[in-house]
Amino acid sequence: MHSLLILSRRARDYHDLIAAAALPELLITSTSDLADAAARSADFDLALGEPSLLRQLLPSLTALQWLQATWAGVEPLLDPALRRDYVLTNARGVFGESMSEYVFAYLLAHERHLIDKYRAQLEGRWDPTPHGTLRGKSIGLLGVGTIGAAIARTAKHFGMRVNGYTRESEGSPDVDTYFHGDGLRTFCGGLDYVVAVMPATAQTRHLVDDDFLRALPPHAVFVNPGRGGIVYEPALAAALREGRLAGAILDVFEQEPLPPDHVFWRTPNLLITSHTAALSIPADIAPVFIDNYRRLLRSEPLKHRVDFDRGY
Amino acid sequence: MHSLLILSRRARDYHDLIAAAALPELLITSTSDLADAAARSADFDLALGEPSLLRQLLPSLTALQWLQATWAGVEPLLDPALRRDYVLTNARGVFGESMSEYVFAYLLAHERHLIDKYRAQLEGRWDPTPHGTLRGKSIGLLGVGTIGAAIARTAKHFGMRVNGYTRESEGSPDVDTYFHGDGLRTFCGGLDYVVAVMPATAQTRHLVDDDFLRALPPHAVFVNPGRGGIVYEPALAAALREGRLAGAILDVFEQEPLPPDHVFWRTPNLLITSHTAALSIPADIAPVFIDNYRRLLRSEPLKHRVDFDRGY
Repeated sequence: MHSLLILSRRARDYHDLIAAAALPELLITSTSDLADAAARSADFDLALGEPSLLRQLLPSLTALQWLQATWAGVEPLLDPALRRDYVLTNARGVFGESMSEYVFAYLLAHERHLIDKYRAQLEGRWDPTPHGTLRGKSIGLLGVGTIGAAIARTAKHFGMRVNGYTRESEGSPDVDTYFHGDGLRTFCGGLDYVVAVMPATAQTRHLVDDDFLRALPPHAVFVNPGRGGIVYEPALAAALREGRLAGAILDVFEQEPLPPDHVFWRTPNLLITSHTAALSIPADIAPVFIDNYRRLLRSEPLKHRVDFDRGY
Repeated sequence: MHSLLILSRRARDYHDLIAAAALPELLITSTSDLADAAARSADFDLALGEPSLLRQLLPSLTALQWLQATWAGVEPLLDPALRRDYVLTNARGVFGESMSEYVFAYLLAHERHLIDKYRAQLEGRWDPTPHGTLRGKSIGLLGVGTIGAAIARTAKHFGMRVNGYTRESEGSPDVDTYFHGDGLRTFCGGLDYVVAVMPATAQTRHLVDDDFLRALPPHAVFVNPGRGGIVYEPALAAALREGRLAGAILDVFEQEPLPPDHVFWRTPNLLITSHTAALSIPADIAPVFIDNYRRLLRSEPLKHRVDFDRGY
């Protein structure tokens, strides 16, 4: 018999979805309250929930064998001071379509001058500024996992040229040209848009720095729906302030919520979307747990296992 | 020998593109100046340009055999007081992708609360309002010509369900369910989005009236990138004011530019985009003229011929 703790702000949704699957040999306890969970934490060999919540309970989950995170990002659980004597799996392969909707909402808004037209309307001003188009434009993807592949698919739908920068994989048929290793500057050359969807690791930390930004043309727009740590924030603020970059759309930051005195609140041509690019929807995430639980019962390797050292 | 007048704000672009095709037996005169064209108007048997400009010259184009409009909309030339003793062709089949970019810019902006998030940013406010998604939502297309078909294709890419309302054609493979004639109310039932891309004719005039709007659910958003005459404007303003409709995105109006005292400037949840949904790009339109000119030389019927009575 296994005993699962669901600790999540959406605990009830997860409970209903997992109970509906009628998984064998599984007791389910669910709560959104940390204290509630803490009282019985030694009972659970399995856990499902937000890394930020489970991190606080981790020391007392003494029987824990497997933790399924409801997020893609598991940074809260990677602190070297924390235990690593359990299997950690994250949510992967379910954010591509949401991320793609986010990215293209803002790319199309840029081509269509959506915010300028809204401002004109507030002033009662007819604004026939001509639109641009995504057709024939180029997009560079920093990272081509399932999210990058979904963005590449939509980019192709809109007639764009797609560059991909990856460690080694070349898995998406919608990427026209792949770049690796020291090909980063060549990857940047002439891009109209660049989107960061890499995991946060020691290798990717501050990859978007002054050198990177100077390799982009001044008409480029940078989008970060992925991980805040990818960006060296002072370099990005300077590039925008000095007009070396046409715009940035940022969902994630080194510190969240973005502090009130952060320079980004006063940086021109910068849009802030407050970490909402792709939410974990229980209807998408519960099947990941259910599939993995069935693998556990069959003694098969779990999917989306995180390597604590590599960080993803 | 044929003598072509290009009368267009983009006269030079059209001249270069058409000259580059080295069409036989063709003299080209191009100008963006009406007076300039008027001085020699009796010379031309062919004309290419904006209907609003050519309309003014029409009485003096006494040798005119064929007029290729650079727009889809030829209303300025349909006035019954004007001559109809020439072949009128319009620009068709080239606006689908631009229109699709326009429509999805605003659909995605709606799901992503793009304008609310921009307003929050202006106030220095972190705004984690969760996003919606196009996946699983429904879109209804009033008219499924080449533009409607392009929008349907993008809707399918984003996982939407597609209703199409047409006079009789059922040509797009991306429409799930077609409606005709008195099926208009059934077409409206439960739609999340409805987009008007019908030609302006006596039959479609004020199709979007109070009855139509009351058949839509209150969470629906109406988009009109097509023709202003489709909408009975007071009914739309009332539906938005009374919260019977969640939003409207309007590119076209009964009178343009929208008069400063028009109620739409003060109507809630209404976005005005000032007739810029799909511009005539010379690189797209010149090939339509070139193809038709070659047909003319071969004595074949021209493509996209407008029926003056039907209006498209």
